[in-house]
This record gives sequence, structure tokens and C-alpha cells, in this order.
Amino acid sequence: MGNSFGELFRITTFGESHGPAIGVVIDGCPAGLEIDEKFILHELGRRKPGQSRITTQRKEDDLPEIISGVFEGKSTGTPICMFIRNADQRSRDYSHIAEKFRPSHADYTYQQKYGIRDYRGGGRSSARETAARVGAGAIAKLYLRQKGIGIHAFVSQVGPVCLDIPYTALDLQRTDDNIVRCPDPATAERMINFIDQTRKSRDTIGGIITGVITGVLPGLGEPVFEKLHANLGKAMLGINAVKGFDYGSGFEGISMYGSAHNDEFYTDEQGTVKTRTNYSGGIQGGISNGQDIYFRVAFKPVATIMQPQHSINTKGEETTIEGKGRHDPCVVPRAVPIVEAMAALVLADHFLLNLKSRL
Amino acid sequence: MGNSFGELFRITTFGESHGPAIGVVIDGCPAGLEIDEKFILHELGRRKPGQSRITTQRKEDDLPEIISGVFEGKSTGTPICMFIRNADQRSRDYSHIAEKFRPSHADYTYQQKYGIRDYRGGGRSSARETAARVGAGAIAKLYLRQKGIGIHAFVSQVGPVCLDIPYTALDLQRTDDNIVRCPDPATAERMINFIDQTRKSRDTIGGIITGVITGVLPGLGEPVFEKLHANLGKAMLGINAVKGFDYGSGFEGISMYGSAHNDEFYTDEQGTVKTRTNYSGGIQGGISNGQDIYFRVAFKPVATIMQPQHSINTKGEETTIEGKGRHDPCVVPRAVPIVEAMAALVLADHFLLNLKSRL
Amino acid sequence: MGNSFGELFRITTFGESHGPAIGVVIDGCPAGLEIDEKFILHELGRRKPGQSRITTQRKEDDLPEIISGVFEGKSTGTPICMFIRNADQRSRDYSHIAEKFRPSHADYTYQQKYGIRDYRGGGRSSARETAARVGAGAIAKLYLRQKGIGIHAFVSQVGPVCLDIPYTALDLQRTDDNIVRCPDPATAERMINFIDQTRKSRDTIGGIITGVITGVLPGLGEPVFEKLHANLGKAMLGINAVKGFDYGSGFEGISMYGSAHNDEFYTDEQGTVKTRTNYSGGIQGGISNGQDIYFRVAFKPVATIMQPQHSINTKGEETTIEGKGRHDPCVVPRAVPIVEAMAALVLADHFLLNLKSRL
Amino acid sequence: MGNSFGELFRITTFGESHGPAIGVVIDGCPAGLEIDEKFILHELGRRKPGQSRITTQRKEDDLPEIISGVFEGKSTGTPICMFIRNADQRSRDYSHIAEKFRPSHADYTYQQKYGIRDYRGGGRSSARETAARVGAGAIAKLYLRQKGIGIHAFVSQVGPVCLDIPYTALDLQRTDDNIVRCPDPATAERMINFIDQTRKSRDTIGGIITGVITGVLPGLGEPVFEKLHANLGKAMLGINAVKGFDYGSGFEGISMYGSAHNDEFYTDEQGTVKTRTNYSGGIQGGISNGQDIYFRVAFKPVATIMQPQHSINTKGEETTIEGKGRHDPCVVPRAVPIVEAMAALVLADHFLLNLKSRL
Repeated sequence: MGNSFGELFRITTFGESHGPAIGVVIDGCPAGLEIDEKFILHELGRRKPGQSRITTQRKEDDLPEIISGVFEGKSTGTPICMFIRNADQRSRDYSHIAEKFRPSHADYTYQQKYGIRDYRGGGRSSARETAARVGAGAIAKLYLRQKGIGIHAFVSQVGPVCLDIPYTALDLQRTDDNIVRCPDPATAERMINFIDQTRKSRDTIGGIITGVITGVLPGLGEPVFEKLHANLGKAMLGINAVKGFDYGSGFEGISMYGSAHNDEFYTDEQGTVKTRTNYSGGIQGGISNGQDIYFRVAFKPVATIMQPQHSINTKGEETTIEGKGRHDPCVVPRAVPIVEAMAALVLADHFLLNLKSRL
Repeated sequence: MGNSFGELFRITTFGESHGPAIGVVIDGCPAGLEIDEKFILHELGRRKPGQSRITTQRKEDDLPEIISGVFEGKSTGTPICMFIRNADQRSRDYSHIAEKFRPSHADYTYQQKYGIRDYRGGGRSSARETAARVGAGAIAKLYLRQKGIGIHAFVSQVGPVCLDIPYTALDLQRTDDNIVRCPDPATAERMINFIDQTRKSRDTIGGIITGVITGVLPGLGEPVFEKLHANLGKAMLGINAVKGFDYGSGFEGISMYGSAHNDEFYTDEQGTVKTRTNYSGGIQGGISNGQDIYFRVAFKPVATIMQPQHSINTKGEETTIEGKGRHDPCVVPRAVPIVEAMAALVLADHFLLNLKSRL
Repeated sequence: MGNSFGELFRITTFGESHGPAIGVVIDGCPAGLEIDEKFILHELGRRKPGQSRITTQRKEDDLPEIISGVFEGKSTGTPICMFIRNADQRSRDYSHIAEKFRPSHADYTYQQKYGIRDYRGGGRSSARETAARVGAGAIAKLYLRQKGIGIHAFVSQVGPVCLDIPYTALDLQRTDDNIVRCPDPATAERMINFIDQTRKSRDTIGGIITGVITGVLPGLGEPVFEKLHANLGKAMLGINAVKGFDYGSGFEGISMYGSAHNDEFYTDEQGTVKTRTNYSGGIQGGISNGQDIYFRVAFKPVATIMQPQHSINTKGEETTIEGKGRHDPCVVPRAVPIVEAMAALVLADHFLLNLKSRL
Repeated sequence: MGNSFGELFRITTFGESHGPAIGVVIDGCPAGLEIDEKFILHELGRRKPGQSRITTQRKEDDLPEIISGVFEGKSTGTPICMFIRNADQRSRDYSHIAEKFRPSHADYTYQQKYGIRDYRGGGRSSARETAARVGAGAIAKLYLRQKGIGIHAFVSQVGPVCLDIPYTALDLQRTDDNIVRCPDPATAERMINFIDQTRKSRDTIGGIITGVITGVLPGLGEPVFEKLHANLGKAMLGINAVKGFDYGSGFEGISMYGSAHNDEFYTDEQGTVKTRTNYSGGIQGGISNGQDIYFRVAFKPVATIMQPQHSINTKGEETTIEGKGRHDPCVVPRAVPIVEAMAALVLADHFLLNLKSRL
């Protein structure tokens, strides 16, 4: 329990940070889909460490190996297992965390829950696991592309540096043009500078990623509990370091009056039903209404900092601890493909679930 | 699919706003629990319409009937079906919505998804369905009480009126002392006034509910996808009108530095492991750490307003529509028990899931 | 857990033998299906007690009430709750079983598992619960009828009296022409006589029901664990008193040579792929191949007999016990619609699951 | 969907016969279990081809690699991925089946369902996949051993050669003493001779495996749909070539009278509740009663025979086909560990599910 996601397009991930590999099994990918391995590699490359000076300098070559479920380049309807070896698995000294609980990490809670933990690099709780999600999400994206659905995400806030331009006025194709993955170059530069400063002060900072989903037909979402946004929210909150999620008007909508917030319907010249505003974020009653879906995901500052901190050891005694190695001062640039992957998995799953809605 | 929630403590709700009844089946309530029907009635009373001048004036007597699963006052381990009749089911005129799509309601999306909808009072998409959740949540609360876990929620914001006192400085027993369910009397009065004004201007307003869960042992939560906060988020986002969720430092935490945000561990005089701050919101790596869990839930303004709005009819033609009947100007006071119910269901489920963690 | 069946066409049953009602929630019935209440009533009538001299003389009027999910005679895509009151719920004396464990009943195991049990009429373990399945199965049948799939079952053995005619030589429309539900009149008479004798000797006897499913397109079934026959088997083994299941050549096939057992493919004059024999029972590799599906379900003799038996009481002391009231001497005639209902639920579920197989 | 089994002790298998590897992810193995890799290897060795003259002569070294979820020899509570490379994956000529549908194989149904198939060695439908189950089942056995539960299986029939001794009179430790895995040496010899004859005539034959589960506490099983025997049945019917399942008195019980069939309870000298007979097969009302659980699994003759057969090609044209390579004349000797593995997985799952039954 806990390591599978989705009902019909269902993934199960496995692997620890410092085991031989991480991986994922996708059960339910429709048969006949062309599996573009270059695209998967590209997506993994967007998440991998060592991309730029504002991410961790650790190098990992995330090469996906497809073990099953693909024949002559196409999905066969059987489970697709993707395997990503932990290349940078050198034998290190973990004595500094084997017996200590790092603040705001999962060391203490895994120990309490299971009575045992693989402390090397955080084990299962390491964000390394999200590479498996990005691999699976790439396949979900390939599927959604067939259905005309586009998945986009970008960095919209780093600490206090906020992108104030609405997504509709941005060119989302330019997100990857800079290392912080903010599609507005001026804001991107300010964000990069802020992260640089933070890194130099041996500290870390949080941020926000905005997701945008386009081309969604009306009807996706399964009320009353598997509402489309409820599944998006669960998906995002399952990503390491995420502390919050909202969609459409979100937390800002609470101080609007209903008369301003309601999205009036109209029929455009092509006969398509649209709404004049989109505070609903493309979802009403938990079901997509055909407008763009957009949402925000809040990330806390990375817990590993290059400064000494107070903590306790496994005997409960006071001790100090200090981050070693190469860590991200801000997680959001590398988290953009993870947000996209999880969004793609939710959409693919709901696309399949919706096939059964009507006679 | 879509009408069940939880894995081991699992509910399935059914019923439309204007059918003969709504109800819920609870599958997985452990046997031997005393089912206090007065408590269930009390919880339903907190949600029911017509409680006060700031809620809808519609009167419903939500009397729960337990159909199964209880014998001589105790749960037997078999499914508990609870039935709540729709007492106020008078034959009304629904012609104003039968052929029109109300803005920011689920009329259009249900029609698109299913090709048919029970338009009377919103049918399945009506918040009436949440009475079934409150009934089931009451039983979850009774179970959690046995395990020392307390579930609390209160209104912390109404439109621009914000409660600025941290929950730790509030007496959460006083939440129900006023009709808006804010435990600080002064703020409560301002909120009530704001809602009154909004109602008089025939408009509606959103708000925030804060939830607090106490007495949680370390270990609840099932990484990597069924993290405790991911399930709480999904549960909250599944409530009608909810647009956002965060926990711990949440959206505010993004502009904090890691050095300030990390929660240092220490051992108190009784030998209990605690954290000096609790930006983690009681959850680390998706697993409870023994500190209080707290979270926020954002509600949009109610979509039904007593003003004419532009919309389209089922043929796609432009039309106007205006709310009739008795509706809430602000949903948060009545949503407090719903938030508590969903939180209780998540905690009960994770309590049971955690029983299997170790040998 | 345990009271739901199916993935996409999913039912959850509730209710005890002597509570106010039993019922079922169907989640996932596609929208737009005409819900023929007369047909549901007809199916329930086939299962109900008191039909004939060879079934229990207990009278129950199983009147289904549809509480939700149907609007203007059609399914809406929301959960369908069906309610069946326990009309014959007179206050009886259950002291003879309250403190004793009836042999080969579920009294002892429920008590051991849950520490509490509703002993009245067997509580949840009573076959009364299967009325809810028959109600849900009727709706599944209505759905399958739209897809050209027919569900049939009949009694093929009662104790030693065996129907030796293959189903292909029988007129399955005549199954309900006699009270034992065997489509061959001569065998039916022998079966009826055997049951009559058994009843007069205050004893009970087992039997076999054969199921036949026609009109199934190739492709239903989800290897490797949710094979079509594995789900049929689970469905049948979940019916009270069932001890065995086989399909196609079944237990008889084990002594055939492969060269005789293999079903050769050919293309008929209409260009349809068929097999010359059908030892596979219409399923190969867990997936339907377009031929008829057929299977057998073995029922043990009813455990309640009108004779004194040795047993123990709840303190573990030796005692005797004797059946009271009105019980079936042989369960198979009334179990025919239950077998059909469970088969229909499996097929409807797999029909929906298969929609997602290909791009 | 379809490639996972179990709720709490849940496995997901992946891999095709001629891909790089097959494998399994176990999600839900309790933490702290010693993972005895030698035992896993031993179990895989019992299933592997080339063991003896009555099985296929194909050689495969099934070496399990544990990729995740184990740290310092113990399970950590995170998913255990086990990987088994397809060593004997030489490039062969599959042209004889690429364009033809082998009778009573899954070639045709996979093609119909998915529109594409990996025809090499049967692809996903190959019994090679069951090696992954045996690997996972070995871990389930290690867990059950901690709880005092023993899992046994043996061959009780090969074609017409039937073992007529009840399991209680057999020494189940001797099952592996002979190559057919029948614990009675005399019957074993007759079975071996029969298989030898069958092989020489280039044919195949079916058989029965009997399973016995000892040391089960009362209370396992989740009525009404997840009855312990219903899950055992589903598990067995999901094994390649299985056509039937019964438990306790099974198909034989149908011709017994209730007065003979009922299992009377008594309390033995140690104060333990037992039944004088065990026609119930250790399960009453779907819940274990503390007596031995026993069941039978029917296997059809292997579909691949060394003789020419009529069939059709992918264009629907008539053709002939003949088995090539090295195949089992009778599958039951090698299927014994598979039956045990699936039984172990069911029991481990139900053991965990039962933890939540009571307050």
C-alpha cells in the first residue's frame, strides 16, 4: 500500500536512493502507443541533478531501461517496467545520519513507523524516487498527446520573488529557456539571483510551481471523492517537499464575492461553450468543463542545509548535524518535470476512467 | 468509482438532494465500538441548514437511521449503513434550472459527462451529500476517541476578515460558542457582520477553515503516494466549494529559509521526542511525527447568488438565471463539521493501515 | 473491506437478515441505461423464499426501492442505491442459537473474528444478503442486454441426480418452467422427487448449477490476476454454500490428452473465427475468445437440518442444537438467479474494463 | 489493472517470456522480516524448467536479484522489487507462431484484446511469469512461518492416476522426494510412468494439485465477497492452465446429506475448539475456523503438443502448427510451488487484513 498511484493508468514505484536502481511498473497503458524512448530520456534529463549551478552538483545519468510491456516500439497492454540504475552510488560515509535524525526530514518518522530504515541518502524518502514518476509521466504524456491534451508547468515563485504575469500572457514553450524554468526572462533572472544568494549563504528556499493543462475535453473527473482536482491535489501533495495545493482562484478566491467569482457561460462563434472568466480553473463539481485547468503547488525550503543544526540521535540524546554532499538550494527548478509527470498521470487515468461514463 | 473513500475504513455515499434519502455505507469499522447515536445526531445538527441567521433558512431534520452493522449498540464488523431521509423534499418548480446551466455550478459538467442529470437542487452535486459524510465521520470520531486522537476545525477567515491568532493560543472547545464557528469571540463578531452584509447585498463570500488533529502517534501515513497529508488534501478537496489545501507552514513556508523552517528535534523531560517548532505540521515524509497536525482549507464563495447572471441554456443559447430559495451566503460555518468528518475518516483509515507496518 | 465487488461496475452490499433492510449501492453503472423496475422485481422473485414446496416456506416480499442514481427512469451515472426491506422480520425466539454455535454455519467464525455477532437468523452471514446481489445483478443484466450478452444458469445436479445432456442440446429458455430450474423436464422431475424425499427425512442435499454466457465478444478479461474465469470463480465462491467452481472442461479435463483437449480454430462461412470444440469454455489465457462461456458451481448441503446435532455453546461446553423454522432442503433452485447475478456483475465489470485496452 | 494481487500484502508482476527479465514488486511486506535469499532461490529452483526427465528440458537459472526494500538482510516496509533475468533468451525462430494462433493458447485472445502481441514464447501469457509469483510467495512464506502458518501442496492426480490416500495420512515433508511431487511413493511411480508414456506419444496430460494450509488461527477472511476461499479460488484460477478449484468436500460434497456433511464442534482436552470432521475445509462463512484448510486445483493438459494441429493464421486462413522446442508433458510437478506461492500470498494478505477486525 502506498506505492501505487492511479486506478486504470496505474503506476507502482520502487527503489531507494542508494540501492542498485529505482523503477516503476505501469499497469494499464493502452496497447498500441508508440513509446518514444528519446522523449523519456529528455524528460528524465529535465529532472536530473547537476543540470545547472542552481541545482545540486551531483551527477546522475538517468538512463531508462524498458524491461517489459513494449514490443517493436509499441506498448502491448501488458505492464511496462522501467528501470533506472543508481549510477552515482559510490560508497560514502553515512555515519553522520545513520544514528541521527535530520530535522524536517523523514528519518525519524520512518524509524518510528517501521522500526528500521535505509539511512543511505534518505533511502525510500529521497526525491530520487521521483525519477521513476517522471519516466512514467513521460509515457502518460505520450498518451495524452494523442488525445490533444497538453501538460505544462513552470516556476512562478522563488522565496519572495513572484511572477505576477498571468499564465495566459506567457509563452509556456519558453519555460526551459532558462535554468530556473520561469517563462518570463526578467523574473527568471531575479529568481536565479535569489537562489544564488541563498546557496552562498549555505541556506535553502521554497517556491511555487504553477501547472497548466490544456485541451481537456469536458467530462473528466469522478465525483464525489475522485474529483479531478482532488486527484491532482493528492498527486501534487505526494511529491517530496510539497506543502500546499490550490487550483483556479484558489486561496485568493476566498475574498472574492460570488457575483465576481462566478464564471458565466457563453457560446462562442464556433458554437463552443466557454466561460468568460476561469476562476473555476477548468473544473466544476470535480469534472473538467473544457477550459484550461491551472493550479499552484507550494514547496517548502529544502531541509538539508550546509549549516550545523540541533537534533537528537536514535537514543534520543541531543546532538548536532550538518548537511554534507551536494544538495539543491531550491527544489522548484528540478521539480517542474515532476509536477508535469504527476499531472499527466492523473489526466491519463481520468481519461480512461471517463470512457465508461455513458452507455 | 468515485463514491467511495478510504481503504480499510471505507465509506461509500449515495443519494441526491431531492431523492427520498441520502446515505452512507461504512465498510471496515472495527467490531466492538459503541455507536453513540446521540453523538451522530449532534454532529449532523452542526451541519444542518437553518441553524442561524447567517446560514440558509431551509430547515432539514437530519435524523440518521442505522440500517445495519450495529447490534445491541455496538459495531459488529459488518457494513454500517446509515440513512438520512430528505425531509424537506417538497415538490418545487425547477424549471428555472432544468434547461439552464448555473454559472460555477456542476450543471454543465454533469450534463457533459453523463448526458443526463437530476437537476433538482443540484442532484448528486449538492452539498446535501456531505451530511452522509458527517454521519460516517461521527463514527470515525468515536473510533479515534478510543485511540486518544482529537479532531478539531474552526473558521479562520471569512472574505477579508482573518483570524490572526495561532491555533495554539485558542480554546478550540469554544468553536461552537458562536454561529460562525470561530473560537475567538472578537473575530467571530467581525466575521458574522461581514456575512450579514454580504447576505444583505444578495451576494456570497468565501473563507478558510483550519483543522487541527491532536494526539496522533508517530507512524501514520503510507509513502510514497498515500502520504498522510496527501490523503488529507484529497479528502478536503473533495468537499464542495473547496479550492485549496495546505498544511503546516503551507503556502507561507515558501518564503522562509530552510535554516528558519527546519523543526529541530529534542527530548522533553518525560523522554518524549518533540520538535521545537512545528512548520512540518506534524507530518514528515508523509508520516505523522507525533506533533499536532494542522492544515487550512480554502472555500470559494457560494455559486448560487440572489442576482441575475448571464448563462446559457441546454441548447447553448444565451439566457439569464437567478438564484431562488434559501442559500448560504457563506459556506464555512456549516462546513466545519464536514472538514472534521473528512479528517476523521482519513485518520481512522490510516490508523488501521498502520497496524500492518511491522512484523 | 469485503463487502464490495467489482472494479468499475462496483457493488457494495449491506444489511443483516433481521435488521430493517438489506441493500446495495452500485457505483459505476453507465449513465443513460433504462432501469426496468419490473425486471428487477422479477429477478428478486426468482430468488425469494416460499416459491414452491421444495424451497423454504418462509414468505418474503422482496420489493426493491430505488433510492438514488435513477432519474426519469434512467441511470444518471451516480450511485444507485437499492433497498429491500426485511418484511418478515417478526420477533422470534433466537435463544436456541444466541449461545450456541450451529455446525457448519458461520456462527463460530464470526464470533472468533469480531468478538460479537448478530445471531438473529445468521445476521450478515445469512443468504438473505444475496437478494441485494440479485437486485444489482438485474441492473447488470439490463446493461449487458444492450451489448448482446446473455446470462443463463440452471440446475444440473441435485445430490446424485445428474443432468447428462450438454447445455448446447438444451433449451435454456425453459429453465424456469419447473420448480427445480432444470431445463430438462424428465431430469427435473427426478430432482424434485429427490429433494422431496430429502425434506421428508428432515435432511438436506447439495447440487450443481451450470452457468452459460453467450454473445461475449473476444477481449474480456484482465491478465494475469484478473482473468475472466478467475473473477467468475471468485464471484461464485463468494456465494453462500459454494464449495467449488470449474469452467470449460474443468475437473473432467485433467484426464484428457492435450491432443484431444485442444480447441482448433477455424473461420466459418461468415468469416467469424470459431473453435471446433470448446473445452476452453470460451476463455483462453484469461480472456474471452468469442465462444460460449460455461462453468459449474458446486453447492454443499444446507447446514440447517431438522435433526438434533451435537455442538458447543459460547462457553465451549457440549450441547445439542436443532434447526427451527422453515429452511430449504436444497439450495440450488433458488441459487440459480444468484449465480446469474454474480456472473452478470463480472461480465459488466469486465466489459467496462476492456474499454481501455487499446489506444 | 490485472497485474496486481492482494490488498495489503500486494504484489505486481511484470515481464514477458523473452524480454530481458521478469519480476515482481511486493508492496506491504511488514518491516523487520528476515529475507532469506537462499530460501527464495530454493523455491525458484522447485519451479524452474529442466529439473527432471518429466519436465521440459529447457534450462533456466532463476536467480533472484533484490533491487529494493531490504536493508541489512531485513525488509524495511518499502516496496521489495525482485528481478529475475531471462537467461535462456537466445534468439530463436518464432516465425511458426508469429503469424499463427496456437490452439488453446492465448495468442488469439491477446491479439483480439490488444491488437498487438509479443509472440516470442507466449510473451506475457507464458507461465514464465509465475516465477515472479514464486519469488514473492517465498517472502510470504517467510512471513507466515513467523505466525505459525504452514503452506503445503502436492500432486494428487495425473490423468487417470489418482492418489486415494487422504492428506492427513500422508507425510507432506516427503512431497519433494520424487520428481512428480506426490508424497506417496507408490502412486508417484505410477504417475511418473504415466507422464513418461504421454511424453513418448508426443502428447500432454492434466492433473490435480492438492493444497493444505496448517496452523491458521480462526478469523481470517473478509465476508461477504473476500471470503478466504473465494480469494484462494481466484488465486488458483489465475495460474496458467488451471480449470477448476474446490475446497473441503468440494464437488464431492454435493451428493452428501447435510446430516453427514455438517462438522460438529467439540472442545478437546486442551480446551481448544475443534470439529470432528472437516468437510468445511477449515473455512465457515468465508472465515477460517482453526482447522486445516485444504483444496484442490485442476490443471488442463498443456496446450503445446509435439504433433501437427489445424489452426488459422492472423489473416484467418487455415494452416497447421506444431510445437517446437522443449515443453512439459504435464505441468503439475512444476506447478506445486506456484500453488504454494499463491496460497501463501492469500494467507499473508488475509493475516494483515484481519488485524483491523476488532477495536
